[in-house]
Order: sequence, then C-alpha cells, then structure tokens
Amino acid sequence: MKIYDRNWMQIEDYLDHDDRIVLPVGSTEQHGYLSLGTDAILAERVAVEAAEPLGIPVLPALPFGMSPYFTAYPGSMSLRMSTYIEVIRDLLDVIAGQGFRRVALVNGHGGNAPITGLIREWTSVHRDEPVEVLFHSWYNAPQTAAAASRFSDVQLHGGWVENFAWTRVDGAEVPEGSIEPLPREVTASLSRIEMRTASPDGSHGGDYGRPDADMQTVWDAGVLEVRDLLENGWIRK
Amino acid sequence: MKIYDRNWMQIEDYLDHDDRIVLPVGSTEQHGYLSLGTDAILAERVAVEAAEPLGIPVLPALPFGMSPYFTAYPGSMSLRMSTYIEVIRDLLDVIAGQGFRRVALVNGHGGNAPITGLIREWTSVHRDEPVEVLFHSWYNAPQTAAAASRFSDVQLHGGWVENFAWTRVDGAEVPEGSIEPLPREVTASLSRIEMRTASPDGSHGGDYGRPDADMQTVWDAGVLEVRDLLENGWIRK
Amino acid sequence: MKIYDRNWMQIEDYLDHDDRIVLPVGSTEQHGYLSLGTDAILAERVAVEAAEPLGIPVLPALPFGMSPYFTAYPGSMSLRMSTYIEVIRDLLDVIAGQGFRRVALVNGHGGNAPITGLIREWTSVHRDEPVEVLFHSWYNAPQTAAAASRFSDVQLHGGWVENFAWTRVDGAEVPEGSIEPLPREVTASLSRIEMRTASPDGSHGGDYGRPDADMQTVWDAGVLEVRDLLENGWIRK
Amino acid sequence: MKIYDRNWMQIEDYLDHDDRIVLPVGSTEQHGYLSLGTDAILAERVAVEAAEPLGIPVLPALPFGMSPYFTAYPGSMSLRMSTYIEVIRDLLDVIAGQGFRRVALVNGHGGNAPITGLIREWTSVHRDEPVEVLFHSWYNAPQTAAAASRFSDVQLHGGWVENFAWTRVDGAEVPEGSIEPLPREVTASLSRIEMRTASPDGSHGGDYGRPDADMQTVWDAGVLEVRDLLENGWIRK
Amino acid sequence: MKIYDRNWMQIEDYLDHDDRIVLPVGSTEQHGYLSLGTDAILAERVAVEAAEPLGIPVLPALPFGMSPYFTAYPGSMSLRMSTYIEVIRDLLDVIAGQGFRRVALVNGHGGNAPITGLIREWTSVHRDEPVEVLFHSWYNAPQTAAAASRFSDVQLHGGWVENFAWTRVDGAEVPEGSIEPLPREVTASLSRIEMRTASPDGSHGGDYGRPDADMQTVWDAGVLEVRDLLENGWIRK
Amino acid sequence: MKIYDRNWMQIEDYLDHDDRIVLPVGSTEQHGYLSLGTDAILAERVAVEAAEPLGIPVLPALPFGMSPYFTAYPGSMSLRMSTYIEVIRDLLDVIAGQGFRRVALVNGHGGNAPITGLIREWTSVHRDEPVEVLFHSWYNAPQTAAAASRFSDVQLHGGWVENFAWTRVDGAEVPEGSIEPLPREVTASLSRIEMRTASPDGSHGGDYGRPDADMQTVWDAGVLEVRDLLENGWIRK
Repeated sequence: MKIYDRNWMQIEDYLDHDDRIVLPVGSTEQHGYLSLGTDAILAERVAVEAAEPLGIPVLPALPFGMSPYFTAYPGSMSLRMSTYIEVIRDLLDVIAGQGFRRVALVNGHGGNAPITGLIREWTSVHRDEPVEVLFHSWYNAPQTAAAASRFSDVQLHGGWVENFAWTRVDGAEVPEGSIEPLPREVTASLSRIEMRTASPDGSHGGDYGRPDADMQTVWDAGVLEVRDLLENGWIRK
Repeated sequence: MKIYDRNWMQIEDYLDHDDRIVLPVGSTEQHGYLSLGTDAILAERVAVEAAEPLGIPVLPALPFGMSPYFTAYPGSMSLRMSTYIEVIRDLLDVIAGQGFRRVALVNGHGGNAPITGLIREWTSVHRDEPVEVLFHSWYNAPQTAAAASRFSDVQLHGGWVENFAWTRVDGAEVPEGSIEPLPREVTASLSRIEMRTASPDGSHGGDYGRPDADMQTVWDAGVLEVRDLLENGWIRK
Repeated sequence: MKIYDRNWMQIEDYLDHDDRIVLPVGSTEQHGYLSLGTDAILAERVAVEAAEPLGIPVLPALPFGMSPYFTAYPGSMSLRMSTYIEVIRDLLDVIAGQGFRRVALVNGHGGNAPITGLIREWTSVHRDEPVEVLFHSWYNAPQTAAAASRFSDVQLHGGWVENFAWTRVDGAEVPEGSIEPLPREVTASLSRIEMRTASPDGSHGGDYGRPDADMQTVWDAGVLEVRDLLENGWIRK
Repeated sequence: MKIYDRNWMQIEDYLDHDDRIVLPVGSTEQHGYLSLGTDAILAERVAVEAAEPLGIPVLPALPFGMSPYFTAYPGSMSLRMSTYIEVIRDLLDVIAGQGFRRVALVNGHGGNAPITGLIREWTSVHRDEPVEVLFHSWYNAPQTAAAASRFSDVQLHGGWVENFAWTRVDGAEVPEGSIEPLPREVTASLSRIEMRTASPDGSHGGDYGRPDADMQTVWDAGVLEVRDLLENGWIRK
Repeated sequence: MKIYDRNWMQIEDYLDHDDRIVLPVGSTEQHGYLSLGTDAILAERVAVEAAEPLGIPVLPALPFGMSPYFTAYPGSMSLRMSTYIEVIRDLLDVIAGQGFRRVALVNGHGGNAPITGLIREWTSVHRDEPVEVLFHSWYNAPQTAAAASRFSDVQLHGGWVENFAWTRVDGAEVPEGSIEPLPREVTASLSRIEMRTASPDGSHGGDYGRPDADMQTVWDAGVLEVRDLLENGWIRK
Repeated sequence: MKIYDRNWMQIEDYLDHDDRIVLPVGSTEQHGYLSLGTDAILAERVAVEAAEPLGIPVLPALPFGMSPYFTAYPGSMSLRMSTYIEVIRDLLDVIAGQGFRRVALVNGHGGNAPITGLIREWTSVHRDEPVEVLFHSWYNAPQTAAAASRFSDVQLHGGWVENFAWTRVDGAEVPEGSIEPLPREVTASLSRIEMRTASPDGSHGGDYGRPDADMQTVWDAGVLEVRDLLENGWIRK
C-alpha cells in the first residue's frame, strides 16, 4: 500500500504486527524517447504492486538519484554522492526510530547502486534492535533479467526493457527497430558532454521496443521477484 | 505539464522558447487523520494545475523535507537541514546548467521555509546568465490565505485547511467538530517526543474539516495565485 | 550583563538560580553611510540593555552572518549557510552542556533568519532536560516595528531605521532627504554584482535619517520588547 | 614501478611520454588467520607486478578502506563512506592536475567497491582534457576468478583464495581443512558485533588454504589481468 | 582603525591605496579569575592599537574559537575544528574577493593555532592576484614573550601574563601569590571533565598577577610586534 | 611490530596486556632528488624500529597528508584539511573502540602538524575509559634535532637531513654541495605554482647530503626518541 494512502495512525497500527517498509529509489533523467521519470515510475510501481497483497507500506519514490553523466540532457536531475548518502542516512535513521526493523530499498536506477556502501556502514552499527536493509535493483535482479533474456540479452538504458505503456509519453513516438548498443565500458567513462555525442537520442542501444505481451512478461517477473524479496529475502524474521 | 509526462527532447524543444521550471517541495509527515503525503500531494497538485495552461514543466515533488519535530509519528520522514540544503543546491545547479533561467519552488510545508537561506546564497553568485529562483509557500500566500480566512482564521497543521478530497485516506474518518488550537509558539518549541503528547492526534487545532465547496474556494485561490506567480512573479523576463 | 564582564565562576554561580543566556547574532556588511557593523552593534546593544536589569548574561555578538548578496561592497563579510548552521549548532551544544536551559538569539540581520531551520532541528531532539531556544529579530518584532511605523512605514536596509548615533561613523555625512525604496522582491533576487548597480550607495531607500528623538522612541521600544521576551517569552519556566 | 622508488623529476619525465598511473586501494582489517593487511598487500603487489614491465608508476596502497562490519576484530580499521569519497576525490583532483589522463584504481577489498559512485561523478565533469578512471577489483575479475574456480568456487573472505605466502604471518598457523561457508546475504547484513559471533575466527568459509602451486596459478592470472587492463582496458589512448 | 568605525565607502577608498586588513581571532572561554573574553579582548585590542597609526582596518574579533577542553567551565564556548576551518575559509574568500591582498590574523588563543593548516591550503591555491595571509599569535611571539620573560618564564593560561586592567572583571578579586604550574603535556591531554579537576580555578599556574607597570611593558611589546608585522612581515609588498 | 605481520587474534592477545598502538603519518610529495615517499618511509621506519623491542603494533603509514603547496610537482599527493581530519577522526574512533588506550601518531611531514587541532578536540570528549593520543614529529623532536644540529642547523625540506640510504632512488644522483636556503616565511606563503619557480629542484636548501655515518647518528637519535616517547611519554599508564 502506498504510505500516501494512509495516515500516521494507520501506520502505527501496522507496526503492531509488522515491521517492514519499502523505499523506492529512482532517478529523474533522460531515457531516450521515454519519460524522464522512467526509473522512479518503475521503481515505485513495481514496489507498490509487489507490496499490495502483503500490506507493506511503500514510501513515495525518492525521485532524484545519482545521474551525473546525463545532466546535459534537459530535464535530467542529479544529486552528488555526498548529498545522496546523507539523504538515505537521514531516512534510515528516522525509519529505524519508528520501529521499522526491515527496510527494502527497491531501486530503479543503476547509478544509485553505490549507495550500498552507505547502507552497509549504517547496518554495521550495533543497535539494540537490529534493522535489516535490503537494496534490490528490480530491473536486473536474476528472475527479472532472465525473463527479459527470453526476448533479448541486450537490456540497456532507454531501450526496450524500459519501454512500458506507463513510461511512454504523449507526443513522442518511439522509433521502430533498433540501434547499435553502446558498450558499457564506454558509457561508463564519458563526461556529461561527451555522452550527448555518443548517444544522440539517449538510448544506449538494442531494440527500441517490444510487444506489450513481452513487456508484461518482464513486468510480472519483476513484481513477483520483489514480492518474493519482501516475503522471504530477509535474514531476520 | 508534469515533466514525467515528457521526454528530454520535448524539454529541449521547450527551452527554445521558454526558460521556466517548477520544483514542488513537500514533506512526508503526519497530518492527523489526513494522508502522510499531504504537503507533497498539495504542492505538486497546485503546481501542476497552475502550470498546465502555461505549458511550464513541473518536476516531481521532492517528497521529503525538514520535519524533525514530527518524527515520533510513524510514517513521518525528515531530512536534516545540512542534507536538505545540499539537495536543493544540487538540483539548482543542474537546472541552471541546462538553460533554465527562472525556477519556482512551490512549497507545501512550513518547515521547509528556511531553505530560502540557501536559495539566497545561490542566487547571490554572479552568473553570466542570471537565474532567478522564487520560493512560494502556496498555502499561506496572501490570496490563498485571504480566501481561507473567509471561513476561518484558524489555519493550522492537519486542520481543515489541508483537508481536501485528495488528502483524505481510506479507512480513516476525520472527526466532526474542532479542537482547541495549539499555540504556534508552543508547537515551535517542543521536542519530537513532547509533540506526541501535546498533539495526540497530530492536528494542531481548529475545525477538522469544512464543506467541499469551501475547500474548492481555497484551492482555486491557491492555483490562481501560483499561476500568477509563474506568469508575473519574476523580476527577470 | 555582558558575559565578557564576568569570569566563569560568576557564571557558574548564576546558573544556581537562573538558566537563561542571550546570544546576539549580527552581520558585518555594508549599511550605506552607516557603520559596517550596524547589525552586530545594534543586536548586541539592544540585548545588553534589555538583559541588564534581569541579570542575564549576554554573549558577544557573532559578528559574521549570512550576507552573500552584499559581498561586492568592501568590508562586508559573509558565511555560507552550511558554515553558519554549524557555528550555531556548536554554540547551542556547548551552551546546553553547561546547564543553560533557555537561550535567546537576538538577531540584527534579516539574512540570518533561515537559521531558524537549524534551531528547530536542534530543539526537536529529545533531551532529558529540554532546552528552549528563541530567535528574535529585534528590529522588526511587532512592538518595535509599530513604534517605527509611527514615523514611516518604509523601514529598509541602510535607511533611517538603522541610523542611530551609535551606528554613524566619523568622516561620513549621511545625506539629507530620502531616496526611492528598492522593492524587496528586487533586492531579494539580485546577484552580488547586480546589487552594487541597483543600490549605488547601499541604502535600500526611504529617509536617510530622522531626528534623534524619533530614533530613541524606536530604540526604547526595541529594548523593552527584547526585555519582555527575556522575561515572558518562554514556554518553559 | 613503485612511485616511492622514484623522485618527482623522474615522474615529470615519465609524463612526457605516458599518462597512466595506478592507485592500489586496500583495507586494514581482519582476515582470519592471515595478515591484517591482506587486502592492501595484495592490491599493491598485484599492481606493482603488473605495472613493472610497462613502466607505469604505482602509488602506495591506500591502506584504509570501508570495513565497518569488521571493526570489532582488533586491528581492523575503517573509514566512513563520507570520508572515503573525499580521500579519493582529493587524490583524483591532484593526479589530474599533474597531467595524468588515465588512472587505474586496483582494488583489493570488496567493501571499497561503492567508491565507483564517486568515480563516476568525478568523470562526468567535463574537462578540457578528459581523465579516464578505471576501478578494478583484481581478486574477482573474470580471468582471476576463473583461474580460482579451477580449484574451488568457494572464494570467500579470509579463505584459501587470500592465503598466499605473502599474507601469512609468523606465529599463526592456518588450520587445515575447511569450514562451512557463511552465506553472503548473512555477512552482508550483520552488525559489527554480530559479525564476531557469526564468524568466530574471521574466515567466511571454505578451504583455509591450498597448495602453493594452486595459489601461484591464481596469482599469475591476477597479475596478467591487471597488466592487460593497464595496456588495453582504456577507452582513451 | 576598527572597521566598525567605518562604512563601506571608506573601505573602498582605502583599497585605492592599500590592500591590508586584520582579522583578530580569539576565544570565549574560562580564564580563571579573568574575563571569559580575555583572548578575544586582547587580540582585538592589540590589533587595533597596532594598526591605528598605519590606518589599516581591523575586523571585529571572531569571538569563538577552538576550546573543546574548557567547555565544562560555564560561559566557555567552542567551535569544532570542522566548523572553524569553514568560518575562516569563508572570510578569506570574501576578503580576497574585495581586493585585499594581505591579511593578518592576529590570534589570542593557543587552541586556534591549527587553523594554519587551512590557511596554508588556502594560500596554496594559485590566484591571478596572490593573497598573503599571516597568522600571528601575539602573546607568544618572540619579542612579546621575551618582554614577559623579563618577569617570569611561567606564562600560562589564566595566569599573570593575561591579567591586564582590561581583562579583570568587577566583583572578582584575583588572588595574590601563585600556584604550581600545570605541566603542558598534562593540560594537553585531559578531557573536558578531567580539566575541571586538574585546574579547579581555571588558572594553569604561576603568578596570578604582576604590577601594572610590568604588564604595560609586556603590552607595549605586543603592540609593537604586531605593528612591525603589519608593516614589515609580508613577503609581498 | 608491523601490524601487517600480525593477524587480528594476535592483536587481541596483545590487548590483554598492553593498550598502545602507533600510527605513522606521512606524505607522498616531492623531496627534491629523494623519493616521493620520503616522509612516509621515514615515519613508518622510525616507528617500526622504535616499537620493535617494545612489542607495540605499528599500523601502516597513512601515505597521504596535507601538502597543497607541492602539488605542482608530479607525483605529489595531498588531502584537503577537511578530508584529513575526518580520516584521523575515523581511525581514532575505531582504535578506541577496540580497547587501545594510548595512541601515538608518529609524523614525518610538517604540513600534517595542524591535525593536532582535531586530536585535541577528540581527546577533549569525555570517555569512560580515556584515550591518550600523542602527536610526535620525529624529525624535529628535541633530541633528534639536536643530533642533526651537530652537523648543521640548516635542516630543510628535501635537504641532507632527509637524505638516507632508504630515501634515495635509483637513477637519480643527488648533487654534491649545497644551495642557498629558502627562508621559511617565503616557502610558507607561496602558491603551488610559485613554489615551482622558487624551488626549481624541490630542495629548500642547505647541504644536499652528508656522510652515512652522520645520517646514522641522526637516525639513531630519532629511533631512540620515539622509543622513549612510547615508553615514557604518556601521562596515563
């Protein structure tokens, strides 16, 4: 359930019988022909659908992440790493102070992954009541990636694997066909200015899209895998 | 228009003829019987409705703000001030780097107001192309407050003035009637623990609600005032 | 009493029967024809006069504040907000650790007001012995502003309302007459370089001065209002 | 070549014809029966051996990394993430300012991997002369891990895969045999205190050691893989 | 001249023919029977007297310094080092931006000396117009210390060497005689709590006072030495 | 003993009967014709030789220090002061958390000395079990400096006093003779760019070298003085 569909008293009641909470973390950044919000939209949606039958509250997605390499594409936002770790630290501190003991960050943006360093630091602190924190990048988790690989192993930024009905935007037609994939070692080393030249439309390659039925297969796998994580992914019960 | 309903190319096109952008800033915090997202929901909604006819892009609301005094109410989040100023600095830096020259922060949470200190510091820097930044707390701006005062001068946290159809939650009935207002100088000085005692249900007093027609009057004033700001509130054109 | 007129043993004795302390916060910045120290001089002086009959110790004024928009006027100083909040945090931490339980910041500079964000964060922490912190901008507090409004509603930076015998400097004659007020929304948005052009002599408008008797009226109101605050402004006794 | 075996004039000469430099990053932390310096020793040694025939200078290993989960084992050190990113930022800034254009961080400690977030931020900045930064965890790079897997797929902290003649210490006999592997999801979630109970001797499982010939095979693969990286791993030449 | 006795236009005129400025840095901390402001009072006064005939502007003393070891004595203040370096950095940045090219920090408190690390970092930056920054602890500079040594080599915190007519306070009689000096290596290693036990009255030993004529000798030496520094202590003219 | 020649269990055993540890702190920076690692090499070596007969563990040298004025000489590294104090804070926190109660920083680089500010702040905190921290610059400690002064009072950066068999490098012949000493007040005020002009080869003057027998005399004094510190330099036993 979205925590925005609840008031604080309902969350206090929830804490009487459960101690889990979900924080989706995304990014606002160029995704080629797709929505600037793709990573945040998908992270929040997959989290909400996964958590729904379990009754676990889902915070609003943190819409801004670490995307310094895309900031030359208008509409892309980015937080410095030094900022981002303080945001996550603050949220974990507050969450832990309210009695939550299991926190899942459901991530939609590859550039956010290094926040695991802060999480590991945070969980290393000894607490009277330990708090477990999972970091799960839903889009390349094993089951979801396997589902996508049934269609293509090329699963890149701004490509088909992010092209859902809910990430397309009005007034922009996604091209047919595909483009040459940009090697990851290249996109991982370009400056924000070079990136614009290397990726003129912002897609990093492969098919631009696939049939909705294929996308639903990927999505269903994503939702199930997050749900399984929320049910069974903890070392503490 | 919500920037999430656009892709980066559409924003680049937009920058050919306009240089305005809106960042709603809210909070995830207790609002008595109302949604934990009240401040973020209202800030984003009022911004989107105001900007719609002007075609100005609206970023997703920053859902977490400075609410240290409410963190003992489950589901409330808060960023430290040292964190919050870095978040806003980062976003302004990126926004300015993309050619936006007029930025409106539409704020839904009183505790965020001190961010004006950072904004003033940021705008004091000399830039070849100056960037203007407005900070507008929509709910107590002159026209909106005047509209609300037609019904009651008691306009407090978690009270009637935040009770819209879109901030009420399922499964929680807002009480009839009213409660004694908490003096502002008291709520401004309590620790997070004392706050729970002083405000058992989280509302700071006055009527819990008013008829939808009254609320629409307030809302309409809020939307118009933000729109006027976006059209005429700048010293730079 | 000025804490500089006391030694630590006298302060320890004082803490046996009282728990109040005053920290004046000012700024070193251009004030047109008036002293570069105007804000610090006035904040400290009003605090000392107000506290004298109450026997409350007054720290030396923090002479540097947040004045990024004036730094192109020689002799003006400024601290970044990220610095300023750490200064105030450090002082509050030390003060609280010594047994003071009521702290009044008497402020003389508008640009310092956002420090209330840090203060609210600091007071939100739960402490075994709560510490109350007031932030009082003496020059525009209700009674003082009302006293000044008896003479003119134009009360702007570097204008008559700051022109006391103790803020004038040798060798500089303050002009007669008045100048057109600069709109606040303009001065609030200019870069440090633009400010010099917009305000050639540094005064933001209105009368340059008024008769000493008028000024004494304003001053007396200021002193009384601070004294009332120190006596009756606390929610904790 | 170790940069400590050179003076600055020799490095200036080197920059006339090459622009590469290596920074080994390690950790000082418990490694079961092995040296507290295992990660730093191995990272520096593999870097030096790899760089030797290429004539590339190798900085001294940064001996302290992010190991918050091991700090209850005496002799283990750790830097907070907020500290670590500033250390790496400072070093990269200085290195870039001297004309180096290709920097390889050869890493010996898993906990350091999130520094890639800072590196990506740093390389995203547009520079007149771009600087490429590689981050290479030598011990689990593809060729090295494959070489190790010829002997066992269990390659865990403090186990056989780190047990070289140059990481064993006098006066401590490494046990024969093996112990049950600790699941990675468990070691990734324990607090620093829990870690001591979960891993009484500090080894995370599998064989404690293997014959020197096996180890040499792994080592040779590691050196060759780092050397290949230094020769061919760059997108800029 | 005190900069507070000037307005910005006078400072701008001054910059037409000179580029020097003085920043006294002190501390608010226990000084035994003497004023809590001893270090700030002396630093500002010696700077003002030294600068007077030279016409160099003297900023107000920064009244708070690094005194963590004295914070258990009521009325003592302290800034963390991480705060203090940002304060000094901010002031130097602003000062340099206004055309001052020679800055003298006249220091009255031993605990502030490590700020030289920040100063050296700041001056190492290459600037088109170099700015020289001197850090001068007036009380133990060679000539001043020599003058004091004519009377006694025991020159310790809170002792005779700080006992001037302008650091004594009403209502507190300084004892006759002397006490056993506390060894510096002891006072340099005590925690804030231990310090209170080790130094019950806050004086670190030696004579409590000396005849006014002796004190004047020391003072005159201090003023002359600061004046000589301001005239001849620069490597840049 | 080098802590890298030990495993954690051996350190835990050591803590049963002793509570001392040594952290050498150096710098990687130009030293004229000598090794870029001179300061780190000497600090670690003198610490290891001094501690050996006492059985005290010696951490690896922190190889990077505060050397902002040398960064225009290739191969020189530097940490900002804001970074450096966090590194030392982190290490002290971890060390104290493991039961060490006496920590000696053996320093080889003059630019690191201001870290004493952080150390004093750290030791001022009240702890149930106090931790003593010594900071010892071995090369200019009284006995060592006296030993060197038997040969020459000119003891400058990159000069004879740092020219040991273990700081010379292959392929670089140190010149015979001597050069004019650079005044300390000059080298203390130059920017990083000016430094290269003022000191073309990086040596700050005096003899370039002296006979090995002289150097051994200095070295022996250095080792003995550090050893005496480790045995007798503490106020806590």
